[in-house]
Amino acid sequence: MSTTIKGIAASPGISIAKAFRLENPELTVERKSVTDTEAEVLRFEKAVTQSEAELEVIKENARRDLGEDKADIFAAHLLVLNDPELINPIKGKITSEQVNAEFALNEVATMFVSMFEAMENEYMKERAADIRDVTKRVLAHLLGVTIVNPSTISEEVVIIAEDLTPSDTAQLNRQYVKGFTTDIGGRTSHSAIMARSLEIPAVVGTKTVMADIENGALVIVDGLDGQIIVNPTEDVVKQYEAKKTAYEAQKAEWAKLVNEKTVSADGYHVELAANIGSPDDMKGVLENGGEGVGLYRTEFLYMGRDTLPTEEEQFDAYKTVLERMEGKSVVVRTLDIGGDKELPYLDLPKEMNPFLGFRAIRLCLEMQDMFRTQLRALLRASVYGNLKIMFPMIATLAEFRQAKAILIEEKERLQIEGVAVSSNIEVGMMVEIPSSAVIADLFAKEVDFFSIGTNDLIQYTLAADRMNERVSYLYQPYNPAILRLIKNVIDAAHKEGKWAGMCGEMAGDEVAIPILLGLGLDEFSMSATSILQARSNILRLSKAEIKERVEQILNMETAEEVERFIKATFLEQKDVLV
Amino acid sequence: MSTTIKGIAASPGISIAKAFRLENPELTVERKSVTDTEAEVLRFEKAVTQSEAELEVIKENARRDLGEDKADIFAAHLLVLNDPELINPIKGKITSEQVNAEFALNEVATMFVSMFEAMENEYMKERAADIRDVTKRVLAHLLGVTIVNPSTISEEVVIIAEDLTPSDTAQLNRQYVKGFTTDIGGRTSHSAIMARSLEIPAVVGTKTVMADIENGALVIVDGLDGQIIVNPTEDVVKQYEAKKTAYEAQKAEWAKLVNEKTVSADGYHVELAANIGSPDDMKGVLENGGEGVGLYRTEFLYMGRDTLPTEEEQFDAYKTVLERMEGKSVVVRTLDIGGDKELPYLDLPKEMNPFLGFRAIRLCLEMQDMFRTQLRALLRASVYGNLKIMFPMIATLAEFRQAKAILIEEKERLQIEGVAVSSNIEVGMMVEIPSSAVIADLFAKEVDFFSIGTNDLIQYTLAADRMNERVSYLYQPYNPAILRLIKNVIDAAHKEGKWAGMCGEMAGDEVAIPILLGLGLDEFSMSATSILQARSNILRLSKAEIKERVEQILNMETAEEVERFIKATFLEQKDVLV
Repeated sequence: MSTTIKGIAASPGISIAKAFRLENPELTVERKSVTDTEAEVLRFEKAVTQSEAELEVIKENARRDLGEDKADIFAAHLLVLNDPELINPIKGKITSEQVNAEFALNEVATMFVSMFEAMENEYMKERAADIRDVTKRVLAHLLGVTIVNPSTISEEVVIIAEDLTPSDTAQLNRQYVKGFTTDIGGRTSHSAIMARSLEIPAVVGTKTVMADIENGALVIVDGLDGQIIVNPTEDVVKQYEAKKTAYEAQKAEWAKLVNEKTVSADGYHVELAANIGSPDDMKGVLENGGEGVGLYRTEFLYMGRDTLPTEEEQFDAYKTVLERMEGKSVVVRTLDIGGDKELPYLDLPKEMNPFLGFRAIRLCLEMQDMFRTQLRALLRASVYGNLKIMFPMIATLAEFRQAKAILIEEKERLQIEGVAVSSNIEVGMMVEIPSSAVIADLFAKEVDFFSIGTNDLIQYTLAADRMNERVSYLYQPYNPAILRLIKNVIDAAHKEGKWAGMCGEMAGDEVAIPILLGLGLDEFSMSATSILQARSNILRLSKAEIKERVEQILNMETAEEVERFIKATFLEQKDVLV
Repeated sequence: MSTTIKGIAASPGISIAKAFRLENPELTVERKSVTDTEAEVLRFEKAVTQSEAELEVIKENARRDLGEDKADIFAAHLLVLNDPELINPIKGKITSEQVNAEFALNEVATMFVSMFEAMENEYMKERAADIRDVTKRVLAHLLGVTIVNPSTISEEVVIIAEDLTPSDTAQLNRQYVKGFTTDIGGRTSHSAIMARSLEIPAVVGTKTVMADIENGALVIVDGLDGQIIVNPTEDVVKQYEAKKTAYEAQKAEWAKLVNEKTVSADGYHVELAANIGSPDDMKGVLENGGEGVGLYRTEFLYMGRDTLPTEEEQFDAYKTVLERMEGKSVVVRTLDIGGDKELPYLDLPKEMNPFLGFRAIRLCLEMQDMFRTQLRALLRASVYGNLKIMFPMIATLAEFRQAKAILIEEKERLQIEGVAVSSNIEVGMMVEIPSSAVIADLFAKEVDFFSIGTNDLIQYTLAADRMNERVSYLYQPYNPAILRLIKNVIDAAHKEGKWAGMCGEMAGDEVAIPILLGLGLDEFSMSATSILQARSNILRLSKAEIKERVEQILNMETAEEVERFIKATFLEQKDVLV
């Protein structure tokens, strides 16, 4: 009897295979008295050493299969294992209370976990997950229990789990693991991001797969529509095999476009660029035919560590990206920290409305040492490619002028020191605050380009926190107010002979693409994996035809009306699967 | 030797008098054993009764001098005194631990105070202040200590205090207390609001007046420029006497305008209305020549209580305001709760960015019972005057349509029930979210009027929390982006034959007034005490002359440039003191 479980589509594709339940072994800890506490400490140290060795292997596998930033998760675990603030109290407890290592470990770890979990700071909450993951590993060694190791799987399976820890995901063997589904998590959870990196279909947040699916049951993971089919009938299997074939054919079609230019049906060229977070993402950009990097989010360089990155570290990262793009445009956004992205080591005060707070350029203009270090690293790297620099969260002309003045100061300083700096660095800004969209004409005289950040622009223009579910109905990319602001920015840029791009989610959105093309957007920057599909869409659209309807669209009354109109008018010739 | 202490101007005017230090007596509490616990409980009950009697007197004085809502503070104190959750544990502690009443009171109160203070909720934090105030009073009675009673003052003084509690302020004898200054507090603290109600000059947040000023020292309170001069020389005293005379002459000049229409030098009429929070504010509106109520903030009806106000309670409040305005326009804003204004009894979830959250109309459209009760009360009151209803935080047409549909439903329901409802109720909206300012043309077809809420409009347009000091530089009313949005709203309204008003701080701002007049704003709504000065300003301005410069102003690059230009061009003929 076939049953369907709904969840969140976390990674696209279809997989059909037997269920493999990834269950955490029960690690029961009892308190026992020990007399030879020295031997007990040694036993604990041995378990730590075994765990370290294991983690080193996992880390190297992750580095090979998933890239540097994913491997860093395990580097963080190794740091936890070597942290005297965790390890010493455990040894101390064994010795002073004459208890077994399991008990001491569990007590101390629980204390740290609950401490970190109680903090409001997201970074600290992640630390709690790290400690839990590491503790489980050491405890298993102490108890002589084997943690199911997904890397030992030797037939094609779909992984069923409550959640996948970073270590679980990194151990997945791509040859055999065809898909996965979890009870918890969302589109931006660790496991979902990993699934997309690994290109494994995944459905998360199902709530019930662990309860509903037995080991060995046949399972279909539909990562396109976000559903799991358990024990499908033969007919259903056939239907999904067809869907899988069609999706793969579609992907193959898209793949043919990897080296194509992005030109509309009536001959208008736009640039499809990629959003990246680290040099590791470059592989995906090139494989997906990115014509440039439209947004390099540099804050990841600053996260998951205890101190600011040095000028050298930053220089290396920027140089790598510029070199790999071989002269294609690379737009680097200067540090956008604050808001929901905290850096614990900066120790910024908690704010009542962090999204309306002291962040991004506001913070950089005050913490100028940090800002200047980043700018120097960028300027030095500029000779290795086609660098463009943009400032985030610019609200007023005064802010843009001040940021640009600091950049010029650092450039001149480097030149005096005899350091080579490119003479062709474009300097632009994010348009993500309503004020700068409204007075884009004034900015256009002073910037080299605009990049519209729709995620923030929408949330500020509609005054609705995009992370808050109770007002999520107001996250309306197609709201006529948003479309008018976008038009205002593009027109202002063109009037001054500048270009306008977009690096928010909207740039890769099927319904938005025709509108943006009609409005004259020059550059669309999106997740690398969306580029080929977007290119395929644009090839079929006529810019001139849409342009004729722009005024009509901008005078529509609601976002729903716009969406219906675009779908009916420009998206009738649909992809096979969408 | 004259010294100057800087602070925050909290209430305008100048006063020169001797310092009267309002010091809290030291109420030292020791733990003592008691054997006759029954007698001790009785002693405690007697102190409570004495405190109650005192509070009743203070409450009645406050009602007479300060109005109903200020008196409510002491009603709240009386509730605390009668709260069994506070009183019973104290009696219990006396009996079970055989301790003295002072100790038991102090222990229990401290526990509650620290509990309430630890809460993030502003309302709960105020509860902590209430408990502290009440405890002090009971403790003084138990210890036989006299709390300095400012109502006994019999010569002209300036009060010097660390802070003034609500009870302190309510006891101030207006005949002798000529001004006050405190170490802590800001423009919106309890004491500052009270000072403005009482029309006593005040400077708060000085940090050092208690340390720097001795009893009996001569003190000048300059509530215009926010400074305190201690031991002024004769020359300085003369100078401030002249400033005081000039200010009073100015006020007398303004007072002559109380029954005048507000007509610009070139004959253009605008309406100067008042923002109010309760029917008690009506006296100030009429005394200051308000031509209408431009914003009745109904949320105060819902605050400082434990349950929702009934339809009857609301009906009474609305009817009172409408009747007192005798047919002049009264614009009532429906409930704007959420954000920084919480209602503990609604038990709403804590949000990461409350200013971008589930508030105002968003909340009313979901909690429809509460919304419908308010609308029914308004509709029933409508026959007693000239009612206009507006919805807050409208971001999309769909929201306005839904709110208006509910209003019409309730109106029809009342009519079926045979209840009289005015047939001339205008229905409008606040424009305080950037999206609605951008698509004001679409809204103008459906609303009867707009009221621009600049406090929020500025904070969303510049993406800067106006309560956050670190980004306060971005609270820019004269930013060209803001001025353009305002123009867009006014033009859109006029094109459809509708009117546009403003009810944010900006409407009463000296620099903004000429711009708004030039842009064609029809109604300016502000604090009642600002109306006469604003009228005096408008009488001198020529609308046509400013209108010619509007385009030039809207193309200026920064808020500073706009401010300089307005001051130099339209405000040269200055008031004596400004």
